[in-house]
Amino acid sequence: MSENSPYIRDVPAARALEAWRAAREAAGCAERLPACLVPVPDAAGRITAAPVWATRSSPPFDAAGMDGIAVRSADTAGASETTPVLLPPDAFDVVDTGDPMPPGRDAVVIREVVHYSAKDAELRAAVPPYQHVRSIGEDVSAGELLLPEGHRLRPADLAAAVAAGAEQLLVRDRPKVVILPTGDEVRPIGSELAPGEILDTNSLMLAEQAREAGCEVRCLPVEPDDPARITAVVEQAAAECDLLIVIAGSSAGRDDYTARVVAAAGTLAVHGVAVRPGHPVVLGVVGRTPVLGAPGYPVSAALTFDIFALPLLAELSGAPPGRRPQARARLARKLASPLGMDDWVRVRLGMVNETLVATPLPRGAGVLTSLVRADGLLVVPAGVEGHHAGATVPVELLRGLTEIEQTIVAIGSHDLVLDLAASALRAEDPLVTLASSNAGSLGGLVALRDGLCHVAGSHLLDPVTGEYTLPYLDRVLGGAAADAAVIRLVHREQGLLVAPGNPLRLGEIADLTRSGLRYVNRQRGAGTRVLLDVLLAQAGIAPEAVDGYAREEPTHLAVAAAVAAGRAEAGLGIMAAARAFGLGFVPVTREPYDLVVAPGALESPRLAPLWALLRSGRFQASVEELGGYSCEETGRRIR
Amino acid sequence: MSENSPYIRDVPAARALEAWRAAREAAGCAERLPACLVPVPDAAGRITAAPVWATRSSPPFDAAGMDGIAVRSADTAGASETTPVLLPPDAFDVVDTGDPMPPGRDAVVIREVVHYSAKDAELRAAVPPYQHVRSIGEDVSAGELLLPEGHRLRPADLAAAVAAGAEQLLVRDRPKVVILPTGDEVRPIGSELAPGEILDTNSLMLAEQAREAGCEVRCLPVEPDDPARITAVVEQAAAECDLLIVIAGSSAGRDDYTARVVAAAGTLAVHGVAVRPGHPVVLGVVGRTPVLGAPGYPVSAALTFDIFALPLLAELSGAPPGRRPQARARLARKLASPLGMDDWVRVRLGMVNETLVATPLPRGAGVLTSLVRADGLLVVPAGVEGHHAGATVPVELLRGLTEIEQTIVAIGSHDLVLDLAASALRAEDPLVTLASSNAGSLGGLVALRDGLCHVAGSHLLDPVTGEYTLPYLDRVLGGAAADAAVIRLVHREQGLLVAPGNPLRLGEIADLTRSGLRYVNRQRGAGTRVLLDVLLAQAGIAPEAVDGYAREEPTHLAVAAAVAAGRAEAGLGIMAAARAFGLGFVPVTREPYDLVVAPGALESPRLAPLWALLRSGRFQASVEELGGYSCEETGRRIR
Repeated sequence: MSENSPYIRDVPAARALEAWRAAREAAGCAERLPACLVPVPDAAGRITAAPVWATRSSPPFDAAGMDGIAVRSADTAGASETTPVLLPPDAFDVVDTGDPMPPGRDAVVIREVVHYSAKDAELRAAVPPYQHVRSIGEDVSAGELLLPEGHRLRPADLAAAVAAGAEQLLVRDRPKVVILPTGDEVRPIGSELAPGEILDTNSLMLAEQAREAGCEVRCLPVEPDDPARITAVVEQAAAECDLLIVIAGSSAGRDDYTARVVAAAGTLAVHGVAVRPGHPVVLGVVGRTPVLGAPGYPVSAALTFDIFALPLLAELSGAPPGRRPQARARLARKLASPLGMDDWVRVRLGMVNETLVATPLPRGAGVLTSLVRADGLLVVPAGVEGHHAGATVPVELLRGLTEIEQTIVAIGSHDLVLDLAASALRAEDPLVTLASSNAGSLGGLVALRDGLCHVAGSHLLDPVTGEYTLPYLDRVLGGAAADAAVIRLVHREQGLLVAPGNPLRLGEIADLTRSGLRYVNRQRGAGTRVLLDVLLAQAGIAPEAVDGYAREEPTHLAVAAAVAAGRAEAGLGIMAAARAFGLGFVPVTREPYDLVVAPGALESPRLAPLWALLRSGRFQASVEELGGYSCEETGRRIR
Repeated sequence: MSENSPYIRDVPAARALEAWRAAREAAGCAERLPACLVPVPDAAGRITAAPVWATRSSPPFDAAGMDGIAVRSADTAGASETTPVLLPPDAFDVVDTGDPMPPGRDAVVIREVVHYSAKDAELRAAVPPYQHVRSIGEDVSAGELLLPEGHRLRPADLAAAVAAGAEQLLVRDRPKVVILPTGDEVRPIGSELAPGEILDTNSLMLAEQAREAGCEVRCLPVEPDDPARITAVVEQAAAECDLLIVIAGSSAGRDDYTARVVAAAGTLAVHGVAVRPGHPVVLGVVGRTPVLGAPGYPVSAALTFDIFALPLLAELSGAPPGRRPQARARLARKLASPLGMDDWVRVRLGMVNETLVATPLPRGAGVLTSLVRADGLLVVPAGVEGHHAGATVPVELLRGLTEIEQTIVAIGSHDLVLDLAASALRAEDPLVTLASSNAGSLGGLVALRDGLCHVAGSHLLDPVTGEYTLPYLDRVLGGAAADAAVIRLVHREQGLLVAPGNPLRLGEIADLTRSGLRYVNRQRGAGTRVLLDVLLAQAGIAPEAVDGYAREEPTHLAVAAAVAAGRAEAGLGIMAAARAFGLGFVPVTREPYDLVVAPGALESPRLAPLWALLRSGRFQASVEELGGYSCEETGRRIR
């Protein structure tokens, strides 16, 4: 591969790992990390570099297995309820569990069945030899293999190793990882940012990923996009570590130097892998140290570490790579995926109708919250174009299945009150999670119909009746509508989010057609968009007359952000969103926001904490504090 | 419950946890740990003590989503292959991924499709607004809930928190755990042991279990069995930690003071739980600190921590308790279990014939290696008397399922060469595990017949033909015998293991009937026992004439240990076992030891590394070095 190739090629992940290994072999990189002897108590979590053979037996002597008396079994022959045997004091010894067996004794009688006549012990049953005796070596015998090489030492392993005679263990050194962030616009965490600058969150994340994998990590200062400086730092850093990670600059843009630097200073093995997100990856060797060039997009960076750094680190340690637990889930919606790329899709998981359901999260490489909110990862392999809705797919679990199974799954309209409820539920009981995915009111009802969620947040206005949500139930849910309950969450103010102080003096919907005014809309199926359409129709305005009607944002807060950034002059949304961004707010209407509850879910113990919370005065007070909300009907069953 | 009750009562685990919680509430113990503000980079692995709301949007500005040129989409209207649009230099800006969008631009055209005529950019397709633009807040909007309370912070969470404006996070203090080992016979690790003494391996194990759970741990010196001293230390230690663990003394023996100490110094909530192993557990409160009295048997101690300490620590942190992944497995053999006790059975797991198979390991509370070797835990609940062989049971996984699925499962006769092979395979490739369970030669063939293993180690002598193993195949495997292959592992010397120097001058089998000579035998079904029976029959000796014929040990090494401990004068076994214990060895016979291979398994990729290993000269040399082995036919297919 030419180091001057301006465009990167996408090599399948397995072939990329192979090419990296070949380059390491060619460069004479170490196959395994060096080994060192450490005292057993310091070896927790380390990887054995040699098998551990027992040099001492455990227990180291024959021992009493119970509290009682040690006897010679032959002395008890013939003892029974009718013909008890009396043992004089020199024919038994009182022993406690773990005591060494006194010489000449070969069995233990538990204290509960021993009676005494004066000083003699009276036994009413014969005792077989070796009863309640722990033999020397019962646990481990000298000469036995206790632990293989390449084993990650757990607490019980350490205790067993000591019991089996080990004082020190030969373990692999911890891998030394150096992280080098690059980019003119990247500033260290804690900096005040000038416009266009971003914080170096990737170093923090990759360093913690490496520490979780047992590495010693050093983070270098951010280097600007200067190939000469980057080369100098790479050469020096590579000499001092087992893996060098260079962040950003791994693509093929004007300021992307990582591939060129690696090619110049060592061997460039791979530039570009067929993995989404994450494809602008650089794999190479400088000196005798493997170098990983990670993309600057945070999700790409995190997955790149998983896919390329973890297998390398496991190989260096001689340990099996850690694998996440897997499960099979039903896909909530159709998933299209590019051919030729392994597609790593983050998913929310929930147990609905006794089925594990996976809902894909936003797929952008920059959406780190998709990783924060993910319960699992679904890999769509390069040869697969996607999956149908309802397909059963394998997922890697990022959260415990028990925890996932107890999660309340909400899909539908976005409202801050759901965030507040999620937070309050969790504070009350760590086992209760409310996971809400934003799909708009209509999307929520469709998800409910398809058995993908327990509740759907909705505020859909019916233009004909002027009623909210209820008229949509029959339309969307069909036959199941009769069994669905509706619980009022809040009433809330909808209005125009505008610049602070409302400098344009916007006052009504007709103002949205003003020349030079840019509107920012919500996505199709969102209740707030339906509301706008109804308001426009009532005012006799065609959607095309509103500049920006086609510009869609997925949440109230995203609309507020667009207005705050000066990218639009107005958007319809809730007062709480205006407050979060310090915007002006022009009230337009007051609407009910309801939770539609899946048939059968109203009485489910899983949802009981939510209903209890909605009735709590403290919660209602905290909602009204947000501004623009009224809780007069909160928790009331509407239908 | 009376603190003077000499016998402990067995309270079900769930009720014991309840009683402990009630005692803590009554004593005014803290419900949650205190919270502290830490810089985000220091918060990895900590538990949030408050929800984390975004205070800044990420990205903080509209940004280019690709490398290319930023344009005003309206300027590109009408562009096509036949009618390209030329943009003069002041109508576009070159941008790289992540750059802020220049004012007035609302779309990005990727560099690959931009051509230049002189300094003008030539576009051959119109561009919709916002193409390849990442909106401000695309990842997270100010005002959004980023993380709930009670959340364990992972690497991506930290990066997202910084991007969303956090500089510090409110997290729970780490739980402070103090561990107090007790017992006159317990010596600190590293001590030279006098007879009857044992090393304090439990403190090490429990401390590491607590550290794995995120605790700060302090281990106190071992206290002798002196209630006054223990009380003083308990009172002082309890004042300085969030959980005090007292090791041993939790039963009701003469020297078991923990329950009395806790009752005297505070509140004794529970003494004895219906959990096996582990039932002599003490739960109580001293001052405002929960106290856990753990049994001294290591398996009991380890499980007690899991069952009682982990839920407490999770509750104090406000986090959901970690749960191990679960799987369902087929039980290899009948499992009897006492009614009224939750029975925690350690199991080996392996994938045989596409079915996950669970083989119970030794169940003694003192057999720590059962925990070291376990791939999973099977809990037989108090109300269940056991399971039939072949029953499908739920297991908690202690090892990754992928790793388990790649394991070669050997059940049968024990030989050190299998240990050596396991170690060599693992050193070669960390993904290859050879797990061998000892069930005797006959037990191995039965396991093979029942689809419980891939290979069975066997050296069964047929008294009629004088042949080894092959005559047993038809008898045990029935119809499947035709499809089973047999691979020679080694030839080995069997002989009498005797005291060093053979002081009794034992020379032949007839010597075993000498008066005063105690023999130690192997279990029924072991090839070595069959060999003894054949030798006795050939010599015309009745088994009853051998003192100790009924005393059974499960392995060669256990027999050697018994002889080394002076508990027997002789036992039949292999030379390597004599060497491991420095014993004398009187050769009796040379026998082949073979691996019987399950139908279909010979060609399976899972076993290929084993066959390759057997043919390797280096491995054969290491086997012969053990002594008493010959590798002339190692790896040869016998049938």
